[in-house]
Amino acid sequence: MNDLPSAAADSVAGWLSGRDGSEHAELVRVADAVRRIIANLHGTSGEAETLAGMAEQLEALAEATEHLPRTDLSRLAEAAVAAADGRDHGPTFFDFSPVAGRGNPVAPPVSVTLVDGVVHGRAHLERPYEGPPGHVHGGWVAAMFDEVLGMVQAASGEPGMTGILTVRYRAPTPLYADLDLRAELVRVEGRKLFTEGTLHHGDTLCATAEGVFIKVDFARLMG
Amino acid sequence: MNDLPSAAADSVAGWLSGRDGSEHAELVRVADAVRRIIANLHGTSGEAETLAGMAEQLEALAEATEHLPRTDLSRLAEAAVAAADGRDHGPTFFDFSPVAGRGNPVAPPVSVTLVDGVVHGRAHLERPYEGPPGHVHGGWVAAMFDEVLGMVQAASGEPGMTGILTVRYRAPTPLYADLDLRAELVRVEGRKLFTEGTLHHGDTLCATAEGVFIKVDFARLMG
Repeated sequence: MNDLPSAAADSVAGWLSGRDGSEHAELVRVADAVRRIIANLHGTSGEAETLAGMAEQLEALAEATEHLPRTDLSRLAEAAVAAADGRDHGPTFFDFSPVAGRGNPVAPPVSVTLVDGVVHGRAHLERPYEGPPGHVHGGWVAAMFDEVLGMVQAASGEPGMTGILTVRYRAPTPLYADLDLRAELVRVEGRKLFTEGTLHHGDTLCATAEGVFIKVDFARLMG
Repeated sequence: MNDLPSAAADSVAGWLSGRDGSEHAELVRVADAVRRIIANLHGTSGEAETLAGMAEQLEALAEATEHLPRTDLSRLAEAAVAAADGRDHGPTFFDFSPVAGRGNPVAPPVSVTLVDGVVHGRAHLERPYEGPPGHVHGGWVAAMFDEVLGMVQAASGEPGMTGILTVRYRAPTPLYADLDLRAELVRVEGRKLFTEGTLHHGDTLCATAEGVFIKVDFARLMG
C-alpha cells in the first residue's frame, strides 16, 4: 500500500482498507437485498398480475425511502479521506461508485485491493450484466476498466479524469465466473497519466485496456 | 427504419418500435420502483437503525422474488424476434439490457430510436451514476457507447461482438441533463464492422467513440 500524502491517495487507500462500522454494514446489506431483487426479476417471465403485485410493494418502499436523510457526495469524499485513519466514518464516496461500490446496487460490485502500486479487482457478474448470451456486456467490461484504471491513477496522488479509454476484447468474458482485473500506472507526462489494465478469467485473457487520464482540479469541477 | 430480413435486425427493430403490453408495462413499473429506491438510497447518511429496517423489508421482498417464474435469455431473444410482428409477446431480450433496458434497474435506462440507419439514444442520468463530482462516471459513458454502437451494427443484419472500443472524453458529461447519443455504421470490411458515435449535452460535445465489431455466430456462443 502506498501512502502518498494527498487527499485522493488517502481517499482511495481508506476505502481499499475496508471498514466494518455498523452504518456501512447496513448500507451494504440494503444494497445486497436490492441486488437480489434485481437478479431475481431479471429475465422473469412472470405474468402481469404477479409483476403488478411486486410493483405495488416496491413503490411503497420507494415512497418510504424518499424521506431518508441524504448528503452530497462532496461530503462523502471528505468522509472517505477521514476514513483513512481507520475509524468508521459512515459510508464514503467509493461505497456509492456505480461500478465498484458495495453500497450502490447498480454496481456488481467490484472488490479492489492496492498492492505495490497495482490495483487488483475481483468481480463476479450475474445475469443482470449479460450482453452476448452467457457473457458479460461489453459496456460493463469497459466500465470496470475505467474504474480500476481510474483508481490506480488516483492513488498516484494527482488524480485526473478519463481522457481516452481503449478496450480490446480478446475473448468473451463469462458470467458466473471469477474475473480478475489488474491496473497499473505506466507513466506520467505533464498532465497526462498513462495506465494499462487486463481482465482475466483464470488463464484466459478476456480483454486489455489503456487509459489516458488528465489531471483535473476537482474543487473547480464541483464549484 | 431499415427492414433487413435477419433475425437480429428484426429483433432490434421490434424492440425499437416499442410495445405497450401489460406484462411489459408492469415489468417497467417494477424496474422504475427499484430505480427510485436506488436513487433514494444513494448517498444516504441514514443511521444504521434506519438502514437495518429498510434492509429487512428489502430482504423479505427479495425472498418473495426467488419464486418468480424465469426464462433464459435465448428464449427472450426469440420473443424479441417474434415481437417484430407488432403483437405483444412479453418482455424481450433488450428490455433486460444492463445499459438501455427499461426492465433492468441497473440501466439508467437509455431510450433508443433507429432512423435511416442511425441509432439515436437519449439518456438522463442521476446520482447513482456519478463519477467526478456532479458528472457521469466515465465507465458509464463508455458503456452507453458500447450499447448504441452495438445496436447500430446489429441492425445491419450481421451482428458481431465488440472487438475494440475507443472513447475520447472531451468535456465532463453532466448528471441531471438530457444527453444525446448518436451511432452510425461507417463501413464493413470482411468480418469487421466499423462504427462511430457521439455524446452531446445540448451543443456541447462531451465524448466521441469508435467501435470495431467482429461478426460472430451467436448460436455457437450459446451452445
